[in-house]
Amino acid sequence: MPIVDIHTHVYPPSFISLLRSRTAVPYIRNFPDAPSSSRLIILPGEDDPSTPSTSRGRPIGPEYWDISRKVAFMDAHGIDVSVISLANPWLDFLPAAEAAAAARAVNDDVNALCGTHPGRLFAFGTLPLSGSADEVAAEVARLARLPYMRGVIMGTSGLGKGLDDPALDPIYAALERHRQLVFLHPHYGLPPSVYGPRAAEYGHVLPLALGFPLETTIAVARMVLSGVWDRFQGLEVLLAHSGGTLPFLAGRIESCVAHDAHLMKEGKTKNRRSIWDILKKNIYLDAVIYSEVGLQSALAASGSDRLMFGTDHPFFPPLEAGETEWLSVKTNYSAIKTAFGEDRKSADAVLGDNAVRILRLS
Amino acid sequence: MPIVDIHTHVYPPSFISLLRSRTAVPYIRNFPDAPSSSRLIILPGEDDPSTPSTSRGRPIGPEYWDISRKVAFMDAHGIDVSVISLANPWLDFLPAAEAAAAARAVNDDVNALCGTHPGRLFAFGTLPLSGSADEVAAEVARLARLPYMRGVIMGTSGLGKGLDDPALDPIYAALERHRQLVFLHPHYGLPPSVYGPRAAEYGHVLPLALGFPLETTIAVARMVLSGVWDRFQGLEVLLAHSGGTLPFLAGRIESCVAHDAHLMKEGKTKNRRSIWDILKKNIYLDAVIYSEVGLQSALAASGSDRLMFGTDHPFFPPLEAGETEWLSVKTNYSAIKTAFGEDRKSADAVLGDNAVRILRLS
Repeated sequence: MPIVDIHTHVYPPSFISLLRSRTAVPYIRNFPDAPSSSRLIILPGEDDPSTPSTSRGRPIGPEYWDISRKVAFMDAHGIDVSVISLANPWLDFLPAAEAAAAARAVNDDVNALCGTHPGRLFAFGTLPLSGSADEVAAEVARLARLPYMRGVIMGTSGLGKGLDDPALDPIYAALERHRQLVFLHPHYGLPPSVYGPRAAEYGHVLPLALGFPLETTIAVARMVLSGVWDRFQGLEVLLAHSGGTLPFLAGRIESCVAHDAHLMKEGKTKNRRSIWDILKKNIYLDAVIYSEVGLQSALAASGSDRLMFGTDHPFFPPLEAGETEWLSVKTNYSAIKTAFGEDRKSADAVLGDNAVRILRLS
Repeated sequence: MPIVDIHTHVYPPSFISLLRSRTAVPYIRNFPDAPSSSRLIILPGEDDPSTPSTSRGRPIGPEYWDISRKVAFMDAHGIDVSVISLANPWLDFLPAAEAAAAARAVNDDVNALCGTHPGRLFAFGTLPLSGSADEVAAEVARLARLPYMRGVIMGTSGLGKGLDDPALDPIYAALERHRQLVFLHPHYGLPPSVYGPRAAEYGHVLPLALGFPLETTIAVARMVLSGVWDRFQGLEVLLAHSGGTLPFLAGRIESCVAHDAHLMKEGKTKNRRSIWDILKKNIYLDAVIYSEVGLQSALAASGSDRLMFGTDHPFFPPLEAGETEWLSVKTNYSAIKTAFGEDRKSADAVLGDNAVRILRLS
């Protein structure tokens, strides 16, 4: 049975050049205090010039752009197939006029990378979301014709106003029509003030561990509440990090809807698709949750036929030099193994069979 | 076997008078457009003067202050014992000079309410957190001597800088010494901007369903990361709403800690108590999570001996007149029933036995 990694990132060479040419977040730079090492700064909160460069962003090396490094990582961890995607912040930051051409270049670049290892690499494309809805829909249609593309990766900003923005409807329609799954991934997090005055002492833990998952949860809740899946019943979305916190909070969201006087007055508490229904028909979850406790909850929410293994490579590398087996990967493998026990069939489904079927990888 | 509700709120008469005397959040008011109905406004985001009063805050009636209504609710839902607590925002908003006296008055008031139904009502006290740490510690000691008090309810603000503020150490020490459990409850939520431009269309759903749980999760993560439970290994905390999102995200938090270069450099990735350990020894969770999916995750994180039934009464009342059995209560009952199936002993533990043992209610 194949093992498929559906959450694994790459910055293709054209995107690396773009980041190196920039001086504001997101960008790549070799700082004067450590001139031989490149840092990747992608979050505004990571770019504090008063701190040493070693605490700004993260080190970046060929594991981010050299596809042979990706394949070596796959081999070291028993991964047969990877569905690679551009890492955040994608092209969200580009001026509108540059977006469409940049998306075409990056997508062609990524598609070509997949072609270097036929059968082992597929990809999610990137959309020119700072451009017009028409340009985005056109790129969706073009992606559907590229041989290795199997959907798109997208942040929570949409065209700038979030995923409950009605201006996205033509894009959702194009995604539905072309059967392009959306891999919804966080990037923006939460305003730094929510973590309190001591947040810097805790490294990147609070924004990464809590801000990211909540960003995803808010985004998907807004899609549900604005009726995206009532209008586009065939739209399929894969949620990063096992849905952020959606499986755990789905009951609370449903309860808050059922008890909301404003929604009742507007007739919106009934005759709507419940989150549970959407979780079973439109949403897929990755299994990047780092614990059996979380995985069980994701599993109960989505079913074992809708959960897919992922690694988040090349993020969360080992901190000690010389470790070839990554702890972050081991933790997710082991959660799947423990959760399913003797039920090898379900474990295989999560580890690869689901991805092969859902993303048409064979 | 007794059924015990450990998450149930009350505003005693002295606190109602205080709220009625105020004109800024939090306050109670009869607005001119509906002069015969009182509204309770407790969150800044609920206080938009451009909207009709019926969409500001929530209606408030005797179910908030008349203890016979609490007992009638208990009788209607088969609840034998309630551990009542002041609802948010407690006394956090008071000028420092008024806090200590107000806390004494409110606590004496609540304690006396419990005395009207001996054996059926116990309570968590309220701390004068806008006062000095000494005043707070003194009230902790005084509460330990009041017959019906079994701990304290507290928000996430602490003395104003959050629960990882070292200035709280004397208070944590007092709580540990007097064996007063902390019921940690959200109030402040997240900045409204995180919910996007259409949030008002969704009533109170996003802040209540997502902001509250994340506030709790951030607060408890900050306590963990700052080493509160390394310094106070006997400090016991009951987390509202099944821990916010802690059970689901505990693995991700642990993974982010283990992979954080800053924390490693400071020697803080090892020789610390893991969240899993703290969940099994210092943290209790309520079962106010409105789904079996969430409850299973809470259960797996804390164990069936650390989870306790609650209702959140009088919040989340039925929207249709004449419903005596509350949907919000039924949902939580039914999640417990489904989660445990034939394991009646564990169901009884969650429904009441745990509370009797942990809070010494017999």
